[in-house]
Amino acid sequence: MTEKIVLAFDLGGTNLRMAAIDAEGKILHSSKTETPKTKSAEDIVRAIVRAAQDCRQNLKKDFEIKSLAAAVPAVINTANGSVSKSPNLPALNGFHLSAALENELNLPVILENDANTAAVGEQTFGAAKGFQNAICVMLGTGVGGGIIINGKILRGVDGTAGEIGHLCVEPRGAPCGCGSHGCLEQYASATAIVRLARELENQYPQSTLYKKKCLTSADVYEAGMREDLLALEVFRQAGFYLGIVFGGLINILNTEVIVIGGGVSAAWNLLVPNIEKEMFRRAFCQPAKRVKLVRARLGDDAGILGAAQLAFEQLTES
Amino acid sequence: MTEKIVLAFDLGGTNLRMAAIDAEGKILHSSKTETPKTKSAEDIVRAIVRAAQDCRQNLKKDFEIKSLAAAVPAVINTANGSVSKSPNLPALNGFHLSAALENELNLPVILENDANTAAVGEQTFGAAKGFQNAICVMLGTGVGGGIIINGKILRGVDGTAGEIGHLCVEPRGAPCGCGSHGCLEQYASATAIVRLARELENQYPQSTLYKKKCLTSADVYEAGMREDLLALEVFRQAGFYLGIVFGGLINILNTEVIVIGGGVSAAWNLLVPNIEKEMFRRAFCQPAKRVKLVRARLGDDAGILGAAQLAFEQLTES
Repeated sequence: MTEKIVLAFDLGGTNLRMAAIDAEGKILHSSKTETPKTKSAEDIVRAIVRAAQDCRQNLKKDFEIKSLAAAVPAVINTANGSVSKSPNLPALNGFHLSAALENELNLPVILENDANTAAVGEQTFGAAKGFQNAICVMLGTGVGGGIIINGKILRGVDGTAGEIGHLCVEPRGAPCGCGSHGCLEQYASATAIVRLARELENQYPQSTLYKKKCLTSADVYEAGMREDLLALEVFRQAGFYLGIVFGGLINILNTEVIVIGGGVSAAWNLLVPNIEKEMFRRAFCQPAKRVKLVRARLGDDAGILGAAQLAFEQLTES
Repeated sequence: MTEKIVLAFDLGGTNLRMAAIDAEGKILHSSKTETPKTKSAEDIVRAIVRAAQDCRQNLKKDFEIKSLAAAVPAVINTANGSVSKSPNLPALNGFHLSAALENELNLPVILENDANTAAVGEQTFGAAKGFQNAICVMLGTGVGGGIIINGKILRGVDGTAGEIGHLCVEPRGAPCGCGSHGCLEQYASATAIVRLARELENQYPQSTLYKKKCLTSADVYEAGMREDLLALEVFRQAGFYLGIVFGGLINILNTEVIVIGGGVSAAWNLLVPNIEKEMFRRAFCQPAKRVKLVRARLGDDAGILGAAQLAFEQLTES
């Protein structure tokens, strides 16, 4: 019998990653191309179709491709397979992406928000494997989140659940792109690391980061590893605010594990002691002792692996 | 055929309420006695057994009593039917309450945390009836919470989930009984309403509440209804902090409804406009528009009705 596989893609603002994946989460072939800079949803569809066809042709043996699964940086309307809101790819706002891809490729299409697929990926094949209740936080340009409860991704009524980056940590804090103030994203994303360093640098004129041009969060991390006091203070503050949010999430969700991923998680040793200190001060004792903080394991593959997993689950259910 | 019913009790720090309840949530008989002030779990067991027997004898016709369901102000270990932690009834800490009651009454016993049973009660028979995803917040002496996801109470791995009162709203705020600082409970409970009035009264020497002896949250509410400026400011602050928490819960859970109950919810007209203002500033647009804020409908019966519902669900499953 021909082995059943799925195609899965991760549509980032910069790159489009496509892969053929089997039921055990093995990546049989993958490719990375640029996401078209365009105002036209059709251009994006064409790029996805091309990548899917290319992936299919590059498979070494004969597989039965059952569906196409997608990780999209957007709020998804799963009822009709359309993209409700896509801040980073506005061409897709309101677009019926599933229908367009099904027409071109003649495959069932499963769409999911990319933070949710990453959480499913880490829970099925990565750092949260074996746990039925997990929180996944991705510290990148922004702060993304996905919540797994009883083995299932928490989507909410409109598919907008899991926005951990937009929990308030400072009621009168820094303005956030979402329209609120003092969201976690403003204190723990790569962007926030740079902003915090800029805000604090005048107190640390000896720092190697002082007035440094084109400062990146990686610069702050490297300085922190050399025990630069400004960098250490930045990670202390980021860890403090992450600890507040984790403490709150533990109190309301009582999960087994919190997975931390994204570029900023490279600073694990600088961040996690500060997170834990605050988290244990904030959370109830029993659930705080229970929870494990673990580092994401799948890197950039989390999204496509999670999307593939959701597609296989749908095959089993139907 | 004899109709199947359950006995349900709500074990408060002050009162023990016992009721016989049918599958439609109809209360066939109920009683209220004082919870014994005691250091002995056996005294509490005896009081429950007496109330259960009294309830059974007062039923007007012959019912088949299937089980005993309990709403307990404690973290429950459902695996073995013991009370993990009961701050208001320390006599029960670590006590195998299910086993003790089963021995005495020869009925299966279902234990659940009282905030969770109240949420189940409101979702099954009250203000959240018909909704599968609900948040229930009880503004009493403290702030209790229960979260319903896909029609089921969210218990978490250890049964400690739903502690909405212990989400942080002010990182460097008032110390909380839980050991943290700046928890919602310190800004939106009846206790907090009084404390906020005391903290602010020097700015409002004209207020009828100024230096008033034995101030209660009901006094603050009544003054607010007469447009006392101090009272209005207290409810503005309480609403502000509730709005921050509701905004965050909407962003991470995307539920259909938030039920607000407890004594402080009597001040609905003073509180809710302030909550909504802040909630809409904080939450994402789509899930914020979706959610309904509704007033709890079952009052003191929410806990016993929810406990009874959990017992009937268990009967159906087994």
